[in-house]
Amino acid sequence: MDRPRAWIFTLGTEVVSGLVVNTNAAFLGRRLVLMGFTVSGVVSLPDDVEAISSFLSYVLERYEPDLVVTTGGLGPTYDDITLKAVAKALEKSLVLNEEAYAMVREKYLARGYELTQERLKMAYLPEGARPIPNPVGTAPGAFLRVGRTVVVCLPGVPREMEEMWVNYVEPLIRGLAPAKVAEGSFTLVGVPEASLAPILKKYTPMYPKVYVKSHPKGFELDAPVLEIYIAVSAPTQEEASRLLKEVCEELALKATNIGGKLRDLRC
Amino acid sequence: MDRPRAWIFTLGTEVVSGLVVNTNAAFLGRRLVLMGFTVSGVVSLPDDVEAISSFLSYVLERYEPDLVVTTGGLGPTYDDITLKAVAKALEKSLVLNEEAYAMVREKYLARGYELTQERLKMAYLPEGARPIPNPVGTAPGAFLRVGRTVVVCLPGVPREMEEMWVNYVEPLIRGLAPAKVAEGSFTLVGVPEASLAPILKKYTPMYPKVYVKSHPKGFELDAPVLEIYIAVSAPTQEEASRLLKEVCEELALKATNIGGKLRDLRC
Repeated sequence: MDRPRAWIFTLGTEVVSGLVVNTNAAFLGRRLVLMGFTVSGVVSLPDDVEAISSFLSYVLERYEPDLVVTTGGLGPTYDDITLKAVAKALEKSLVLNEEAYAMVREKYLARGYELTQERLKMAYLPEGARPIPNPVGTAPGAFLRVGRTVVVCLPGVPREMEEMWVNYVEPLIRGLAPAKVAEGSFTLVGVPEASLAPILKKYTPMYPKVYVKSHPKGFELDAPVLEIYIAVSAPTQEEASRLLKEVCEELALKATNIGGKLRDLRC
Repeated sequence: MDRPRAWIFTLGTEVVSGLVVNTNAAFLGRRLVLMGFTVSGVVSLPDDVEAISSFLSYVLERYEPDLVVTTGGLGPTYDDITLKAVAKALEKSLVLNEEAYAMVREKYLARGYELTQERLKMAYLPEGARPIPNPVGTAPGAFLRVGRTVVVCLPGVPREMEEMWVNYVEPLIRGLAPAKVAEGSFTLVGVPEASLAPILKKYTPMYPKVYVKSHPKGFELDAPVLEIYIAVSAPTQEEASRLLKEVCEELALKATNIGGKLRDLRC
């Protein structure tokens, strides 16, 4: 079974310049894999309409992903240009969305702030998009379908993005992601990564059903410690768990056969 | 003065799947900006030769960057395929590099390990590349020039990558980055981001010499706290410091004029 493919765009000059660590990409990658998606790529770009729209167009045309998620650039400042760039890439206009307008209006007026031009800007969405409520901040997200691709735009502030993702986006996209995923792991002490390599090799052709990855944590030569992570995907949770157990136990056995000590076995 | 443009490729299925937080991108972004580069984009891709080589080709042809840095995928396992993908994108062969061979050989033999096929693989570099020593781990990096672009490939383990970057890569690329950068910041309490937006607007046309970014830290409406970050770039450090002081003080003054309280002013 082919997994649906997702691309993540984490937008903002502060991301590419390393002023923030990109925890949004890690959060979304993790949630998407658990839902059964393959994350085909993560792209960070500065706040630049031309750069974002041309790159997004390229990814849409070249890869035809099932899902594109953007974070960042939805706020009121001049450099919050994500929706403008998304609209440009999709050859759509930005239009005042009544539902988004009501959301933004209510947030500000209830607290005695004026609805300035900068604030009103947050109610403009690409034509055909619906707003995603933002229970934490002010800028609504946007959800739209373009051909085979669902495009979701979320703010960049992690606590806003995460709450919107869990409460509103996952329920909306669950239909795209029929796969169930099971994950296991173990720690292997005393075997350098290079010695384990021939054993892991076997699992390449089985991709994308089985994904095995070793992460070196100690010092490769003098005190090797490897974390082995295994994820499998199957149409049902039972099948995923069964396949995980099979792969995980076989790997653990082979690893002890070449002198490794197991810790934290989770098969 | 135009800043030289860099792209960062942080490669690995564990990165796109959110199994690790991408601190490598933040480290490199920060160091590059301080050297006077503009980071035009950060791309994370899974361990897949075709995906990496085709994306890298696209970026090289479309953007002609001054510098491309890759991290990840240099080790001994079957999924360490970065150099294969880079060679393919550049239409070069992977060849046994004598200098890299000596580096890898010494690491393993000195500790009584055999030089297996998997380990030897780390000594194959794209034609014309020179190895970058890895004082912490085993896989050497690679440094090569292709047309106007310098390509640097480093391992993904942060403590290896960071040590190689600081000790070997920065001295090699300093000639590409003539600019000096000065940075300042302040915290602004009591002004929502949307109210500051018209003030920040002024600095857009001056980009790329002046970069101003506001990061919301509190709650936009009820207890707004903004961190304002300013970076300026100039041919000399004196000029950069002077311009920074000018922009930073003007912004701080305007922000207090609309009712904000300043904290941690660093102009």
